[in-house]
Amino acid sequence: MILARVSGTVVSSRKAEKMEGLRLLLLEKIDPISMKGKNEFVVAMDGVGAGLGEIVFYVSGSGARMAETTLGLPTDATVTAIVDVIEQNGNISYQK
Amino acid sequence: MILARVSGTVVSSRKAEKMEGLRLLLLEKIDPISMKGKNEFVVAMDGVGAGLGEIVFYVSGSGARMAETTLGLPTDATVTAIVDVIEQNGNISYQK
Amino acid sequence: MILARVSGTVVSSRKAEKMEGLRLLLLEKIDPISMKGKNEFVVAMDGVGAGLGEIVFYVSGSGARMAETTLGLPTDATVTAIVDVIEQNGNISYQK
Amino acid sequence: MILARVSGTVVSSRKAEKMEGLRLLLLEKIDPISMKGKNEFVVAMDGVGAGLGEIVFYVSGSGARMAETTLGLPTDATVTAIVDVIEQNGNISYQK
Amino acid sequence: MILARVSGTVVSSRKAEKMEGLRLLLLEKIDPISMKGKNEFVVAMDGVGAGLGEIVFYVSGSGARMAETTLGLPTDATVTAIVDVIEQNGNISYQK
Repeated sequence: MILARVSGTVVSSRKAEKMEGLRLLLLEKIDPISMKGKNEFVVAMDGVGAGLGEIVFYVSGSGARMAETTLGLPTDATVTAIVDVIEQNGNISYQK
Repeated sequence: MILARVSGTVVSSRKAEKMEGLRLLLLEKIDPISMKGKNEFVVAMDGVGAGLGEIVFYVSGSGARMAETTLGLPTDATVTAIVDVIEQNGNISYQK
Repeated sequence: MILARVSGTVVSSRKAEKMEGLRLLLLEKIDPISMKGKNEFVVAMDGVGAGLGEIVFYVSGSGARMAETTLGLPTDATVTAIVDVIEQNGNISYQK
Repeated sequence: MILARVSGTVVSSRKAEKMEGLRLLLLEKIDPISMKGKNEFVVAMDGVGAGLGEIVFYVSGSGARMAETTLGLPTDATVTAIVDVIEQNGNISYQK
Repeated sequence: MILARVSGTVVSSRKAEKMEGLRLLLLEKIDPISMKGKNEFVVAMDGVGAGLGEIVFYVSGSGARMAETTLGLPTDATVTAIVDVIEQNGNISYQK
């Protein structure tokens, strides 16, 4: 899974039928040392109700369809966790 | 999913049987901040009727075969949405 | 799918059993603007009878096993089309 | 599989249901020549009880769900081995 | 599939149960023009009995579990062929 920040949302009125009613998040990947954005973006489905600015991680590939809310959907990226704490080398490097 | 602009089409008369009659799009990935092309291209199947120049996103991997029109086809990239609005950090950064 | 040029072949006498008798192509990825090689290579199975120098595209991942000739084979890249025409922004940028 | 060092853990109270009770590792990919970190990070599930600082490798994609502890879970990266020895060109380049 | 040279082996006593008894190869990806290593490494399962220094190619993703010896195993990379000859643009560029 890859760490990212929720940087926005993407709205589409013309999309694959199965996607109706789903919220689409724009994520920016982050470096977990500096917690800064890496200017690399993905559009992900939301499996946990993540909000703007929150640090999350998302699952890629077929795993993106293993969350309760995304079974059988045409997705390759799904947010499956909002991050509370990142601990590195014994120190807390991020706390929500 | 990855944001891209429809930059053209690819025509092939000699291809895998299951692909007969399908429209093949040439997509250029875009940076969602500047909305400029990144000079990275993929050929994708079209699940939504996307037109030249439109901003879309596409699904990669096995998810590319989860749209209504691509079930069982030999694809690893399918356009599943035409983008109307991108909102970043509370501001509309793109509107169709 | 990714655009590439058939740059050669790979021969192996010691390989997974299921691969006996299959032709293995060496592909060089191309930039569809300049049509030049990107010096990035993959070995792919051949689903369409592609010849040396031809512009093709190949499918990656599990989709590489969705062509008629590659069902159940241990492949992650299969050529599924020989390209006749690439049209970009209304102009023909490549014609076979 | 990719070689990495366990650099920390990620804690989340709001995550996909199936992930309750699972330990999430922060991994930094390493170069196996110098054994130094490459400043590229992934969050992985733990299939072997790996500890902080240990050299491991992880499986990506659907293979990440083929370990005994991760069947059916929404993961795309799982640690499946703690490395004891790396031998390169006849020499032991790493020993735990 | 990707061309690589067998540069060593990886030994692990603590690993996912299904992996007991399997040989794990360290591969360095090569450039097929110069045949030089690219300093990019992967750990792969061995489906053909490849030896140190041999030029091979490996399958990634779910295809890595389609060889006779790796069905159902937690792998995302398996060597499926030892390369005898690479022919590029009509010339033999590598011969074992």
